[in-house]
Amino acid sequence: MERVIMKVTVSQQHLAHGLGLVSRAVAPRSTLPVLGNVLLATDEGRLRLAATNLELGISCWLGAQIQEEGSITVPARLFADLIGTLPNEMIHLAVNPRSMALSVKCGSSSTELKGIDAAEFPPVPAVDSDHGVLLPVADFKEMIQQVAFAASTEEARPVLQGVQMVISGDEISLAATDGFRISVRQMRLSEPVAQPISVIIPARALQELARIAQEGEVRLIVPPGRGQVVFQMENLQLTSQLIDGNFPDYKVILPRSYKTHTIVSTEALLKAVKQAEIIARMGNGVVRLHLQKFDDRPGQIEISAQSEETGANESLVDANIEGPTLAIAFNVKFLREALEVIKTPNLVLQTNDNRSPARLQPVGDESFQHVIMPMHLG
Amino acid sequence: MERVIMKVTVSQQHLAHGLGLVSRAVAPRSTLPVLGNVLLATDEGRLRLAATNLELGISCWLGAQIQEEGSITVPARLFADLIGTLPNEMIHLAVNPRSMALSVKCGSSSTELKGIDAAEFPPVPAVDSDHGVLLPVADFKEMIQQVAFAASTEEARPVLQGVQMVISGDEISLAATDGFRISVRQMRLSEPVAQPISVIIPARALQELARIAQEGEVRLIVPPGRGQVVFQMENLQLTSQLIDGNFPDYKVILPRSYKTHTIVSTEALLKAVKQAEIIARMGNGVVRLHLQKFDDRPGQIEISAQSEETGANESLVDANIEGPTLAIAFNVKFLREALEVIKTPNLVLQTNDNRSPARLQPVGDESFQHVIMPMHLG
Repeated sequence: MERVIMKVTVSQQHLAHGLGLVSRAVAPRSTLPVLGNVLLATDEGRLRLAATNLELGISCWLGAQIQEEGSITVPARLFADLIGTLPNEMIHLAVNPRSMALSVKCGSSSTELKGIDAAEFPPVPAVDSDHGVLLPVADFKEMIQQVAFAASTEEARPVLQGVQMVISGDEISLAATDGFRISVRQMRLSEPVAQPISVIIPARALQELARIAQEGEVRLIVPPGRGQVVFQMENLQLTSQLIDGNFPDYKVILPRSYKTHTIVSTEALLKAVKQAEIIARMGNGVVRLHLQKFDDRPGQIEISAQSEETGANESLVDANIEGPTLAIAFNVKFLREALEVIKTPNLVLQTNDNRSPARLQPVGDESFQHVIMPMHLG
Repeated sequence: MERVIMKVTVSQQHLAHGLGLVSRAVAPRSTLPVLGNVLLATDEGRLRLAATNLELGISCWLGAQIQEEGSITVPARLFADLIGTLPNEMIHLAVNPRSMALSVKCGSSSTELKGIDAAEFPPVPAVDSDHGVLLPVADFKEMIQQVAFAASTEEARPVLQGVQMVISGDEISLAATDGFRISVRQMRLSEPVAQPISVIIPARALQELARIAQEGEVRLIVPPGRGQVVFQMENLQLTSQLIDGNFPDYKVILPRSYKTHTIVSTEALLKAVKQAEIIARMGNGVVRLHLQKFDDRPGQIEISAQSEETGANESLVDANIEGPTLAIAFNVKFLREALEVIKTPNLVLQTNDNRSPARLQPVGDESFQHVIMPMHLG
């Protein structure tokens, strides 16, 4: 009889779900073929699935019957497609070490998948789970969603592709900027940390975390001297390389005071900006906001866009304006993206003049602020 | 006051739905800019929307309040995106003939879209609705779905990109072939036609018809001498150019008899073929069917695929086999596509030998047959 180095029985549903979680870390077109594979390994009575693109790694652990300990890697996409076609029954997995193939049996179906030795898969170092900062998953996902989109997508300045995370005392803060806008969100921790932490995490890694994290709590660990951050959840772990460098000191750019305070319905302003974007995106990508005050009735914002090619759009939205009126222009996509992450019914737009940064904040929630540079009014 | 040549009020919901229907006929990257536009025109108390890529044209008619008769064309994608952002309220449309712009007003939002004169839009000739053949939409959609996928997507032989439609006596027949497979579906008409019809319709036009047709009946008209077919439904019309040429006489290729008749569960065979496809698609794209008979138990089909790169798969499916057993190989994608359009729980696979065409038919339904060439067993 052929020697078998891994023999595991696992439910199709669990396996399909687990492959969905780790798949986003797969690097299918890497020059290192093993990075296009998913690792399957027995691990203390469970089956571990893992994928990594060297920058980002995701592991998950599934309940399974382990008949023989062992491991292998197989092409991730092919394996996930195969598991997807199988019925929701028990799947029998076994590795033949001579042919380095994974046998997948389910009902009357039998498949041999050619794999690569697990020894070639990048090791994921163990972390000390007793340390680290515990955060509620739902809150941390919201923080990520409010901040990470403001990071740069350009490779020229790597630090701007990251999100600065500062943990100090009983507060955690995330900040991201691409040089044209800054998004900052703070949150109070349930207990203070002993040692302050300040790291730059790739925005993409945080966005993947927000995608796969389900509920409960996430433990955030920055193991000393490894240049990594580890997020541990139940049966799930995401590891990301940190970005080396100095994050811009955005606090010196933020205005200390604002002359005009405009309170407006978040939904109404977002709708108007989306309409303006349809016109503006074919042209210069600029939306104009004209703050207007009247003696006999409430103020309003006139939102408008114009394009040589496509035409013009304008909408009026009621607003409560305190301070001098103003006409100010923004990159329409940036403004829309900021409005989309404000969760309160009303927001306050704070401005000085049409060349100084403006600030958007949820009304009644000081924990989030988004500062955006105006565009030059032509 | 500026003269206005079209003034119409229409509900956002109806307009958005109508734009969704006609949008598939838009040709956004045509050298003729007006083909990237959608026509809006008042038409006997309704608003007509139309788009065409010269080969395929779709028109739909919406209930609307007409204040002024007129017409214009505007960029289809831009207009649909704009209407999509508006609330479900009444939209006021008006054309300024001097600037050739469409004014779109809804609530406090106001947009001017630059357009192109409707005179530049290709005319859609009127058809005589008293003639033509009436078909239930649901049945005709099923016919299209069972046949059109077998047409060729290669431009080398235009007739193979079409579906042959023959109407004679009280029968309509659709047939398509790409040279490797033939799909044929017949249906009885509720009343015989006076004049037989034989035309070749682009498969893509029929697939669009199946996508947009809702329910009720469709009237099929082939106006004499125009090289067109027109499908009329309630508030909706699709016009397609016909393909000129001689459709291959596929009937002479179809075997007159088969030696082996294999009855098998459609769903079980489809599942097994989908698994085989995952392995085969990275290699030669071939699935093997091995028909096996036993003295002491029912027969079975062994479905298998192999690939140098990825591995091997096999499944067993119970089958009732009459006649000599056989091993036969097919293009796995072609076999899967044929199985996907068989609606009955069981199908009959009819074969002669591993070099002759095989036939798939729903058990208990002679109106559909799919004939497929085997691949050479290596």
